Amino acid sequence: MNAPHHVVIIGGGFGGLTAARRLRRAPVRVTLVDRQNFHLFQPLLYQVATGGLSPANIATPLRALLKRQQNTAVILAEVVEIDVQRRRAILSDGELDYDTLIVAAGARHHYFGHAEWEQHAPGLKTIENATRIRRRILLAFEAAERETDPVRRQACLTFVVVGAGPTGVELAGTLAELAHHTLRKDFRNIDPSTARILLVECADRVLQPYPSGLSAKAARALTRLGVTVRTGTNVTEVLADSVTLRSGEQDERIATHTVLWAAGVEASPLAQNLASATGATLDRSCRVTVLPDLTLPGHPEIFVIGDMAHCSDQAGKPLPGVAPVAIQQAKYAADLIQLRPSGRALSPFHYKDRGTMSTIGRAEAVVDLGWLRFSGFIAWLVWLFVHLMSLVTFGNRALVLMQWAGNYVTRNRSARLITGESPLPLVGRASSPPAAGIDRAP
Amino acid sequence: MNAPHHVVIIGGGFGGLTAARRLRRAPVRVTLVDRQNFHLFQPLLYQVATGGLSPANIATPLRALLKRQQNTAVILAEVVEIDVQRRRAILSDGELDYDTLIVAAGARHHYFGHAEWEQHAPGLKTIENATRIRRRILLAFEAAERETDPVRRQACLTFVVVGAGPTGVELAGTLAELAHHTLRKDFRNIDPSTARILLVECADRVLQPYPSGLSAKAARALTRLGVTVRTGTNVTEVLADSVTLRSGEQDERIATHTVLWAAGVEASPLAQNLASATGATLDRSCRVTVLPDLTLPGHPEIFVIGDMAHCSDQAGKPLPGVAPVAIQQAKYAADLIQLRPSGRALSPFHYKDRGTMSTIGRAEAVVDLGWLRFSGFIAWLVWLFVHLMSLVTFGNRALVLMQWAGNYVTRNRSARLITGESPLPLVGRASSPPAAGIDRAP
Repeated sequence: MNAPHHVVIIGGGFGGLTAARRLRRAPVRVTLVDRQNFHLFQPLLYQVATGGLSPANIATPLRALLKRQQNTAVILAEVVEIDVQRRRAILSDGELDYDTLIVAAGARHHYFGHAEWEQHAPGLKTIENATRIRRRILLAFEAAERETDPVRRQACLTFVVVGAGPTGVELAGTLAELAHHTLRKDFRNIDPSTARILLVECADRVLQPYPSGLSAKAARALTRLGVTVRTGTNVTEVLADSVTLRSGEQDERIATHTVLWAAGVEASPLAQNLASATGATLDRSCRVTVLPDLTLPGHPEIFVIGDMAHCSDQAGKPLPGVAPVAIQQAKYAADLIQLRPSGRALSPFHYKDRGTMSTIGRAEAVVDLGWLRFSGFIAWLVWLFVHLMSLVTFGNRALVLMQWAGNYVTRNRSARLITGESPLPLVGRASSPPAAGIDRAP
Repeated sequence: MNAPHHVVIIGGGFGGLTAARRLRRAPVRVTLVDRQNFHLFQPLLYQVATGGLSPANIATPLRALLKRQQNTAVILAEVVEIDVQRRRAILSDGELDYDTLIVAAGARHHYFGHAEWEQHAPGLKTIENATRIRRRILLAFEAAERETDPVRRQACLTFVVVGAGPTGVELAGTLAELAHHTLRKDFRNIDPSTARILLVECADRVLQPYPSGLSAKAARALTRLGVTVRTGTNVTEVLADSVTLRSGEQDERIATHTVLWAAGVEASPLAQNLASATGATLDRSCRVTVLPDLTLPGHPEIFVIGDMAHCSDQAGKPLPGVAPVAIQQAKYAADLIQLRPSGRALSPFHYKDRGTMSTIGRAEAVVDLGWLRFSGFIAWLVWLFVHLMSLVTFGNRALVLMQWAGNYVTRNRSARLITGESPLPLVGRASSPPAAGIDRAP
């Protein structure tokens, strides 16, 4: 008897996990490889960054999700390269043979050639990113509380979010909530509601993928929350204590210790590896262009799905890097793998767009179903419902989610912990003593 | 008008937080200083270390707890020294004048002169400790899953807990739960229930502060859970891949990558500073001996409470380092501060021991109320109830706690995330390829 067909899946995100589950009754052996031991519900990562949720609320161990799936093994490992000739995934500490490969390794931050900005302007892709951002935001308020110089204090209370896509909008809106409501009575020397939250976007409107009417509504909602929206503005420099913005010909230097990056993403480096090995092309975001059946030229045994794949809709427009695309592609790939032994095929992959939605702050969202566009509280309820359902699907428990919905209503953000190996000293603290009886060290 | 009397409290644990709250209506100005921005419910830290709870479940921001208390400010800072002559707390980045000082800075781990053991055998005092231990435990199972050499695999699956006080017993019991139940179906190459969990104690029984009958019951419960209890045993060496135990004249080297330290504690270094400045004596655990009114000799304006204070009961026996002692001492100190302006005094501090209790594993605990001793499921219910009530008192929400109680019943431990800046490579991985189709890198 032959060994069963071995499907290796790289990545345990929406794409990889969905593919593994879809293959649960297939006569194949599945190995899911991830660098992390959990599936992360990335759409809610900004809630961890702003202290509304704990990491475990949006992350579920992959082994727990797949424990009952007997044909599937999970391996905690980093894939460094694909050897397409020998059909092997090269791990940092071993190798893994495959018959069919599904690459769903996702994307990471991209600083447009300014890698040095990363240290000052962390992105939001991992749990570690999120707890680091949470730490920076909270330490900025703590530093402001102890700062007596009004100029330096205002710098501590200035937050700049770069990029007004869904993540940037959610982050800026939630930061405004945090400053204006949650922390309102927490301090004695500062008024957190004087915090300045800038949302910077190079395009001419926020939430660019949305119809312009919804973008305008989102911008108004952000302004109501206390966010200063700066569209048509580029970032030209990020330093430890400032960011320089350019709109038109004008440069403006803004003193701040907290710059958060939600601007560019770039596919996993495996995309480049696959493109050069198979002759597939890469797009601007380093995504590898896939054939209509999501495989690579000359390599029907390699599927690339999710944020790593450049895949166009019927109008020729590239599909966005969102969870529903990855999930539908995963199902397509898994179904095709199961059909192949019978010699049958599937028609090319077609993305069924059920709509997009984005939340802005408490009880405020925009929803675009294509045939229906709306915003406000009802939109937020729809957003909440859809995300709650997805979270449950991906293994998180309803109880936790009710807590989170409750947080929204009560504006409680109980997970605002400053953690990390060395929580002190405060960011950007200069030296001055605060008014509350602290004197400068001699 | 004079400035109000300024009470500075160092530490936001059970003692410091209770003192601050007790002074909420007093005509004084209170400043609470802590290195962390949250109060940590330390008795449940072992639950974070074993993936049953998230850090935010047992930690509440100090500012949130004290936001409505108008006479109180919170400062995030590290106190490095007390200048008792000038009545100033020296911070790492400033100074703070006081009229009355309450020092409640707690204790940290102590390796009995072997500070080099700490890197291999982390203790359990902070959130960072707990997530680090969680990471080590989970990575050990991951490494075992990928290890083919049976001897090395068994080393990965060997866990040694040093110290059988309440923390060590809880940690060992919960580790056994994790291995034998929670993870049972998670792996494909290993059977987690073959994990070996050793609980090492130099005394002749576990839970030494308890009556010997309850110790025996606890030891039997641990054995039933699959823990190997080794009393009368010392640790003589801790290395990255082994621990050496000595019972009698016999040395035994045990191959393991996971040694957890629950043995010794030592008071905060501020105790030493205070002792040398005031002439108070230090005990073996570096706790400063306080007068019957919890102050220091010649310094009625300095109170030392909680794990930092050496304070004897009426029989001359030192009080244990547990939360109820710290809480009662905090109330005493706060009351005395409020009485002093009227010239009145309080009789010496007297600890009212309402009993001690310790949990061992799921639905198993020992309770000693002095007049009544019992163990088993009822004891566990009592333990659960008391801890739930205390958690609520200290600002955590009932919903989270119900989740946690539910975890106990379902044996779910959903917070078993491996986080940290560089989650890979696995601990203690040598080189060998596992059976599941991974080949060694050439």
